[in-house]
Amino acid sequence: MLDQIDLNKKISKEAYKSILDSLSAKLGELQRAVREEKASVLVLLEGWDTAGKGTLLGRALRPFDPRGFKVYNVGKASEEELMRPYLWPFWSKTPAKGQIVFMNRSWYRRLLEGRFDKILPEGDVSEAFDETRNFERQLHLSGTKLVKFFIHISKKEQKKRLEELSKSSASAWRVSETEWTRHKHYDDIFALTEEMLHATDTGASPWSIVNGHDERSAEVYMLSTMAKAMEESIMENRDDLLFHKKQFLQNNANPSKENSSETLPGKLGLSTADLRINSLDNIDLSLSIPKSAYKKELPKLQERLREIQYALYRERIPAVVAFEGWDAAGKGGAIKRLTERLDPRGYEVIPIASPSAVELAHYHLWRFWSVFPKAGHIAVFDRTWYGRVLVERVEGFCQPEEWKRAYSEINDMESQWRRYGAILVKFWIHIDQDEQLRRFESRKNDPERQWKITEEDWRNREKWPLYQDAVEEMLLRTNPPQAPWTVVEANNKEHARVKVLKTVIDASLAAFKARGIRI
Amino acid sequence: MLDQIDLNKKISKEAYKSILDSLSAKLGELQRAVREEKASVLVLLEGWDTAGKGTLLGRALRPFDPRGFKVYNVGKASEEELMRPYLWPFWSKTPAKGQIVFMNRSWYRRLLEGRFDKILPEGDVSEAFDETRNFERQLHLSGTKLVKFFIHISKKEQKKRLEELSKSSASAWRVSETEWTRHKHYDDIFALTEEMLHATDTGASPWSIVNGHDERSAEVYMLSTMAKAMEESIMENRDDLLFHKKQFLQNNANPSKENSSETLPGKLGLSTADLRINSLDNIDLSLSIPKSAYKKELPKLQERLREIQYALYRERIPAVVAFEGWDAAGKGGAIKRLTERLDPRGYEVIPIASPSAVELAHYHLWRFWSVFPKAGHIAVFDRTWYGRVLVERVEGFCQPEEWKRAYSEINDMESQWRRYGAILVKFWIHIDQDEQLRRFESRKNDPERQWKITEEDWRNREKWPLYQDAVEEMLLRTNPPQAPWTVVEANNKEHARVKVLKTVIDASLAAFKARGIRI
Repeated sequence: MLDQIDLNKKISKEAYKSILDSLSAKLGELQRAVREEKASVLVLLEGWDTAGKGTLLGRALRPFDPRGFKVYNVGKASEEELMRPYLWPFWSKTPAKGQIVFMNRSWYRRLLEGRFDKILPEGDVSEAFDETRNFERQLHLSGTKLVKFFIHISKKEQKKRLEELSKSSASAWRVSETEWTRHKHYDDIFALTEEMLHATDTGASPWSIVNGHDERSAEVYMLSTMAKAMEESIMENRDDLLFHKKQFLQNNANPSKENSSETLPGKLGLSTADLRINSLDNIDLSLSIPKSAYKKELPKLQERLREIQYALYRERIPAVVAFEGWDAAGKGGAIKRLTERLDPRGYEVIPIASPSAVELAHYHLWRFWSVFPKAGHIAVFDRTWYGRVLVERVEGFCQPEEWKRAYSEINDMESQWRRYGAILVKFWIHIDQDEQLRRFESRKNDPERQWKITEEDWRNREKWPLYQDAVEEMLLRTNPPQAPWTVVEANNKEHARVKVLKTVIDASLAAFKARGIRI
Repeated sequence: MLDQIDLNKKISKEAYKSILDSLSAKLGELQRAVREEKASVLVLLEGWDTAGKGTLLGRALRPFDPRGFKVYNVGKASEEELMRPYLWPFWSKTPAKGQIVFMNRSWYRRLLEGRFDKILPEGDVSEAFDETRNFERQLHLSGTKLVKFFIHISKKEQKKRLEELSKSSASAWRVSETEWTRHKHYDDIFALTEEMLHATDTGASPWSIVNGHDERSAEVYMLSTMAKAMEESIMENRDDLLFHKKQFLQNNANPSKENSSETLPGKLGLSTADLRINSLDNIDLSLSIPKSAYKKELPKLQERLREIQYALYRERIPAVVAFEGWDAAGKGGAIKRLTERLDPRGYEVIPIASPSAVELAHYHLWRFWSVFPKAGHIAVFDRTWYGRVLVERVEGFCQPEEWKRAYSEINDMESQWRRYGAILVKFWIHIDQDEQLRRFESRKNDPERQWKITEEDWRNREKWPLYQDAVEEMLLRTNPPQAPWTVVEANNKEHARVKVLKTVIDASLAAFKARGIRI
């Protein structure tokens, strides 16, 4: 997840001020609503040394009435705490109904420093993940909304901050040998952190990653994330009341009108662009390859891939290549070049349309399980199981709970495939809005390609910002180190096709190498 | 769980016939309702070799219209299946909405024979449990009701059946070296099975253990369990529709009347006694100790326990002793004898009453976490966290989903305590109804002890059968090998008190031994 974060993102002072005013007013209202409606919220902050957890916590608290929340600093375990099971102190700090609790650090300490310092032995890590997920599931089921922030900074930024702190005698005490050691092992800690974030990113308790390089955008992002969570908590609490009420009505066989006229304080007028944390806008779409070079390179890559195909077959390794991307981004063309010289007995292209009636009658991943390739075969998916968090999310074909849950369901499915030994390559084929328009227009005006463009494509285009939110969140939450996304810059088709071929080749070679197979 | 099952339980031919008639009619109706209301149900059968899975599956199918269900036999993985991840074949066999699917064996093969035969390496077991739980959670969330039967027989019974099968040439082919090898390792497989049952017994997909010694009672139990599950599936499916409807109404701000007049086919007139699988009625309440022997033994045991208390303190081992039992069973008296000679600085008796307002505002286990004893200390609970699945279940203080979920929540909490190193002893202090009445009457007539008996005690007594169901299910589902229940026969108070002391002493000595500590 961390590698997705745009650390260069800034927010202007003017935008910041105007957003902050409306957010603060809104949060004040929400705090009162949480108390009155007996919702409950727990906000925790984790992050790198010098990421600014303390400062950001201070900023996050400002909009709230201090009589309505509690703050806990979670330090090293005390004598009292060491004499109890690990989660003991956290249970007593969970909010009661109507309360908001903030924690500076949390039960994740043991999975970060605890693990790095080998206080938590590696053999106990998977149990600790399990305990953590159970704990959070129980909090969720008992009606507590959990907001988990991880504040991210780069290694370079951390070094700069450590050096600055060391310079001034007023702050030098904050930097000890420990901080420098951890800084030296930034990359190791990064890997531990990624694993921890993915293992504990669930539909009910997702992580929110904060850009720690810019205080203003960090603050705005945190406050708006909290506002959304508080709204949800209040709504879920009401659903719960409605559920109890419904049970009551059913038991008493006395139907009455349902009260759905209550509403929450007005929606925030925030543009989602201000809240983007891993923006697709930063992708360098100017990348291109001259046609002549393309013509020379393509056949070579295709030839190489055919050799690889035979090796996959011989070694009985299944491969899954997944294509997602904007309409008219060139998925079809890329798939054509990818498979052109493959042996047709060993691969299949599987186009994914809207689910059929039979498919709709099953769990959403059912149809993807059923077409999983045999060992030694390659399955190329033209659109995929990510439809759940893209089109189904944007068009409202499923409930928010359903697509929020789908990230971890998908991660789980992919990890079963990978554990079985499959190679998995996932492409997001990316173009910008201008390029899409050019391609739409050119299709419209070309009698031979008019069929390629429909009314629906134009309608989808109007929802570009909603789709962009969905794509960015997908790239964030389904990008574990073992099954990463490859974003393909596709304004130039030749560049895109070559990158797709190279990526599949490299992924296969890496898999062969990991198995000690020479090719 | 298996050790709780009463394998001697039989049902009379007459009772069987009359129950079967009404059950069969009911199941036919439910099958139609499942189809019409687009619910879906998956029934799987696991069990020992020769437990009678095939026969019982045949019996379980009889009430159903054969056009309305599918049956799968899950054998060894086929060539096709071996070329895919383990769960692949099961996904394609899950029922669509409106369908009922039966499986003879299931994805649990890998956790039973697969593990015994070392096809599943021990290092992969916890991942396999994880995959299984995720798979079942996803089925549940997508609206499929899962009914999991494990058919239990004793080692002796298995031997008898294997010998009988071997005798006849018509059936001898069914018994190979494999079956005999597994029979020889009955105890090892028993342990693997227990672990598997506990790890995958969840609120949404609990295990139902079937007494394989008596076909008639097995059949009645299975059919009624399926009937309940089908009812629940239909109701949950409706809840889901109601949820979507409610969302729709909220979005459209157009409140209308809720339709709650639909009802299910009439309730079954089954007495729960017929369905008991681990009956408290079998406990030998005639056990007793002469007063003279008691007077001699008690001080010795108390003295021994005090030595143990100091050892616990020295070794910083926390101990939790939990008391549950019928009203007037003698919990207070047993606790008094247990603690009489202990050093008061090292133990605490914690009486658990109805939750306070603060406690009610938190997760139900919150208050028990907060009083967990320090390392080296002993906490004695007079009533416990099991209130959730006893009084709160029976009195309707929580939703069925909540108490059903609580078994695994409690197992999880206790396993965290145990992993931390705590000793955990759990007592169910048991008397029968006649003995309770004698004690109530004697209290009523004794001016000095009248305060001990209230109107509520008499009211609870009227609900004895409901409480008995709850106690039996609690003993079944929260009895993992690492944290077993001790049922104390308490019609004779002296016997009960001595057994309590001995059990705590033995559990402590076992913990010392496991740590290599001599006392």
